[in-house]
Amino acid sequence: MSSCSRPFNFSAGPSVMPLAVLEQIENDLLSWQGQGLSVMEMSHRSDEFMHICQQAENDLRCLLAIPEHFKILFMQGGGTGANAAIPLNLSQTGTVDMLITGHWSAHSKQEAEKYARVHTVFSGQANHYRDIAPIEQWQFSKGAAYLHVCSNETVHGVALTQLPDLTALGINIPLVVDCSSDIASRAIDWNLVGVAFAGAQKNLGPAGLTVIVVREDLLGRALPICPSIFNFELLAKHHSMYNTPPTWSIYVAGLVFKWSLAQRDGELSGLAAIEARNQRKASLLYSTIEQSNFYYSQVDKNVRSKMNVPFFLKKTALTPTFLQQASQQGLIQLAGHKALGGVRASLYNAMPESGVQQLADFMQQFERSYA
Amino acid sequence: MSSCSRPFNFSAGPSVMPLAVLEQIENDLLSWQGQGLSVMEMSHRSDEFMHICQQAENDLRCLLAIPEHFKILFMQGGGTGANAAIPLNLSQTGTVDMLITGHWSAHSKQEAEKYARVHTVFSGQANHYRDIAPIEQWQFSKGAAYLHVCSNETVHGVALTQLPDLTALGINIPLVVDCSSDIASRAIDWNLVGVAFAGAQKNLGPAGLTVIVVREDLLGRALPICPSIFNFELLAKHHSMYNTPPTWSIYVAGLVFKWSLAQRDGELSGLAAIEARNQRKASLLYSTIEQSNFYYSQVDKNVRSKMNVPFFLKKTALTPTFLQQASQQGLIQLAGHKALGGVRASLYNAMPESGVQQLADFMQQFERSYA
Repeated sequence: MSSCSRPFNFSAGPSVMPLAVLEQIENDLLSWQGQGLSVMEMSHRSDEFMHICQQAENDLRCLLAIPEHFKILFMQGGGTGANAAIPLNLSQTGTVDMLITGHWSAHSKQEAEKYARVHTVFSGQANHYRDIAPIEQWQFSKGAAYLHVCSNETVHGVALTQLPDLTALGINIPLVVDCSSDIASRAIDWNLVGVAFAGAQKNLGPAGLTVIVVREDLLGRALPICPSIFNFELLAKHHSMYNTPPTWSIYVAGLVFKWSLAQRDGELSGLAAIEARNQRKASLLYSTIEQSNFYYSQVDKNVRSKMNVPFFLKKTALTPTFLQQASQQGLIQLAGHKALGGVRASLYNAMPESGVQQLADFMQQFERSYA
Repeated sequence: MSSCSRPFNFSAGPSVMPLAVLEQIENDLLSWQGQGLSVMEMSHRSDEFMHICQQAENDLRCLLAIPEHFKILFMQGGGTGANAAIPLNLSQTGTVDMLITGHWSAHSKQEAEKYARVHTVFSGQANHYRDIAPIEQWQFSKGAAYLHVCSNETVHGVALTQLPDLTALGINIPLVVDCSSDIASRAIDWNLVGVAFAGAQKNLGPAGLTVIVVREDLLGRALPICPSIFNFELLAKHHSMYNTPPTWSIYVAGLVFKWSLAQRDGELSGLAAIEARNQRKASLLYSTIEQSNFYYSQVDKNVRSKMNVPFFLKKTALTPTFLQQASQQGLIQLAGHKALGGVRASLYNAMPESGVQQLADFMQQFERSYA
């Protein structure tokens, strides 16, 4: 099937994947590299799969410029699993600090409360998660084991422009970053990070894989009640093979890492090329919204996500018609999260610029018809 | 690629899958049912995926004749995850009883000890896990929350011929069955079962999915420290969509369920047909072993697994040569588990009888060459 008959899929996750990756999967499905078996049929202890897994790890390290003193772990359970795994591995002091910037970090807080006292350094809830106070206004607790932040809120479309520099504030605790929906969309300054984690099903591949990047000195601190499959030290010691890993998801993510490394944009390559393209895609959509009197964004301009763009029609009653006509034109999965309603366009790495252009064109056409 | 160029894959898991299922996956990979997107790209909240997931659940219920008062949950974390999830959901009394019949139940015990006092009703360890005492000799504790058994030990090749009938013994606690490596290979008497669980990567599909079948009255008992992704009540309430499920693995497992239901053997169909074929496959291999003076099994004849057949060459030093020549003849992944050495042939549902026949022929030929 040719690419032109595929719709543009704006799903918040699981989400669009690079067509070239899907074609490679199709090609190798029955017989990976001519070996006569599918990757799904490979023992995770086989030489073939061990190679696939190691290559995926190496490529992710290269793509995100992850220093050697960080371990890369392939885990199961998604972001929701990691919401338990983080305090189960790191909350020895009994208190953790959290920045609450939207639906996801609020969700993370609920889970962390099973294992630790949770102190909120700032919450955007009172203002409906439309902005984030500057770091100088965050209220840190004393004795917290770490600070947890969500770098990109998938539901509310709010993002941290840059990660907080705790050391610069004289706060000597690790920073935990939930980057599920913006990992591999822009560079990460690893000097600021203790742990970064992400469910794969946005920018990295299919659901069923969680990537954990953890600084080595943070291993070995798990609570006694930590399930083995969540124990970072155990996973690191066994190179993510303590138990059977999600082999297919690791394989596909590995292909996505290779695709990401191969991206070019002018003189830029890899993550820099992806970041430049993501910048243009988001600018196009936000400017389309801003230039109209028909659509609006609720999010403060300083913290707008480049990955997930929730927006609304001033004539609310037209939203179902908008979504239906968009879908008919091959622009699918644009309905807003049930917590917000409206429209949401997710612009992950695999969404081509032409898809965002078509969405912008459709929005203008719809506005002309219904304004 | 034609089926004749595929090796026979005796891996203990992840393992051989039905070729017809792989071909259907290949066919739908870029565009599921002509919709223009891969299943991997589908939102788990989309109508399409909700339909795939519900159909998989219905087909598994039909295949295994699971009564309506059991919930089917699609979880992540594999059998090792379930080893934590079981006590986290069911160990309210603080004590659990376990039957230790091999590597896997011993592994389960280690994990359960994080959450409860574990009482061993019988352990085969002293006799190297080669037999299982009759139920009359098991020593039950008082006040245990449940009895955990492993119906098929993947490493040691030991299986329970039938599940224990606790009610007949006057013991009124739920039976928990780890059937990771024999689910869907034979009928289950659900009257005897409280919870059955299985990692998918043997008889059900690819790694990354755990199936939990839980009697409704056992929901709602989770410990406060139970991670949400392991909370059976939460998963049941949200139809396995509390968080993003492992969508691809559920899709593929669903195709395997359909394939399983469609199996025929004479007048038998579905699970009965599969069971009859598994019986013949195991008989062929065990009789090949028994009829030789060259190979031997260490397992008591009453408890031999029909899924995983570990065996040994009397001339131990020939084992690497055996494995190498087998592999050259397209009989792969026959090395025994590192805990035992020797040879292990896993005969899961997707292994055709012709594969076992070729293995038996090769064994006889090798014996003639080296006896």
